[in-house]
Amino acid sequence: MNVLIVYCHPEPGSFNAALKSVAQEELERQGHTVAVSDLYAEGFDPVEGPAHYSQRQRPDYFSALTEQRSASDQERLPSEVAREIARLERADLVILQFPLWWHAQPAMLKGWFDRVVVYGGLYTGRCRYDAGYFLGRRAICSVTTGAPASAFGPGGRGGNIERLMWPIHYSLYYMGFTVLPPFLSHGIQGGGLSYQAEAGFQAHLGRLKQDWTKRLAQLDCDEPLRFNGWADWNEDGSMCRQPH
Amino acid sequence: MNVLIVYCHPEPGSFNAALKSVAQEELERQGHTVAVSDLYAEGFDPVEGPAHYSQRQRPDYFSALTEQRSASDQERLPSEVAREIARLERADLVILQFPLWWHAQPAMLKGWFDRVVVYGGLYTGRCRYDAGYFLGRRAICSVTTGAPASAFGPGGRGGNIERLMWPIHYSLYYMGFTVLPPFLSHGIQGGGLSYQAEAGFQAHLGRLKQDWTKRLAQLDCDEPLRFNGWADWNEDGSMCRQPH
Repeated sequence: MNVLIVYCHPEPGSFNAALKSVAQEELERQGHTVAVSDLYAEGFDPVEGPAHYSQRQRPDYFSALTEQRSASDQERLPSEVAREIARLERADLVILQFPLWWHAQPAMLKGWFDRVVVYGGLYTGRCRYDAGYFLGRRAICSVTTGAPASAFGPGGRGGNIERLMWPIHYSLYYMGFTVLPPFLSHGIQGGGLSYQAEAGFQAHLGRLKQDWTKRLAQLDCDEPLRFNGWADWNEDGSMCRQPH
Repeated sequence: MNVLIVYCHPEPGSFNAALKSVAQEELERQGHTVAVSDLYAEGFDPVEGPAHYSQRQRPDYFSALTEQRSASDQERLPSEVAREIARLERADLVILQFPLWWHAQPAMLKGWFDRVVVYGGLYTGRCRYDAGYFLGRRAICSVTTGAPASAFGPGGRGGNIERLMWPIHYSLYYMGFTVLPPFLSHGIQGGGLSYQAEAGFQAHLGRLKQDWTKRLAQLDCDEPLRFNGWADWNEDGSMCRQPH
């Protein structure tokens, strides 16, 4: 299969970089083809706005949806957006590799959604959720956090990790993806400068690499996350049946 | 009191811009002093990374926390970060005004957290949550969404709005803020180009302005959102008592 890793971290020596490389190596070893969007290295601009649309559908009023739809229809999307879309369209599996910053993905990856997943092109009012563009493809988030796993349970100090991941998971589901449970690497401190010494950093990284490799070898066994779908909603978007 | 409105929308004619102006006018009418961070107009760069740190604490390995702490300690934070911090420090009430894009705040506002709320300066391991830097100050999100209110209940198509807002609310609480329930403006489509005609746009806006003005006049009556605090957690971050 074709795999796309969307990798978002500024430091090539980071845990995130290592996990990205592990995934690439393991999946290529399995015979898959792997592409990487290295957002920081490619200088991806995450800010959606008028600057990206030189020929405006509506010059007097900037609406992202209006300009996205128009640019998509007329095949004049910004080149980096067209590049990301082409990568997505080739992928059977998408891996998002990122650190949890302020209870969500870093701004750069948030803006990847804002800019790349264009209205009119990759979704419309009906082409969403379980009728979404990427139906039948899979997506998984591989996420590092700064606190120990114990802090991410219900009521925990770091926040319930399911709650923290829900918005990005729902965004992937909105696009049509089958969303696999995330691969979580807890207790990661940048560069081992805080409570981890260099030796600890390397040992921790070694364990994570093993866990991630093992997980990647068994993705077909994963039970996907469950979300409501069109059959569960009334026309006004409210739920018409008991949730899953 | 001093109020800071952090406003994040690219279009000056938008609902978001109108709601920002309404808040400014109403709060000034009440005798308060209002400052506005207009992130798009000011060209705020939301991408945390090495580019912002010319004098690196650790040149060989970029860790945002390490560089933030060092730059904060040595008073050489990037000028736009220092400016935002100064605005925050003056504010008794912070209003975040933004549209919900991809189930969260736009990348520009996400990066405002990533870059402005610096480790060492505005938080540390102990200076967080109900021992946070901004203890005693209040914060409220005013958010526009593209779907009707009916879609944002539990199990709804747009996603449960409490779930969607939780990460940003928890981020504000992490900073020490008392977080007020959000002001939600549903069914907003950019420029009235989708299902709303211009007359509908104006009527809708008129109602929202009234609702927001009324809400702003009664903020002291708001019951804040509740979160667990230090007394609820074990040393490892797990919850030690029943949640609120």
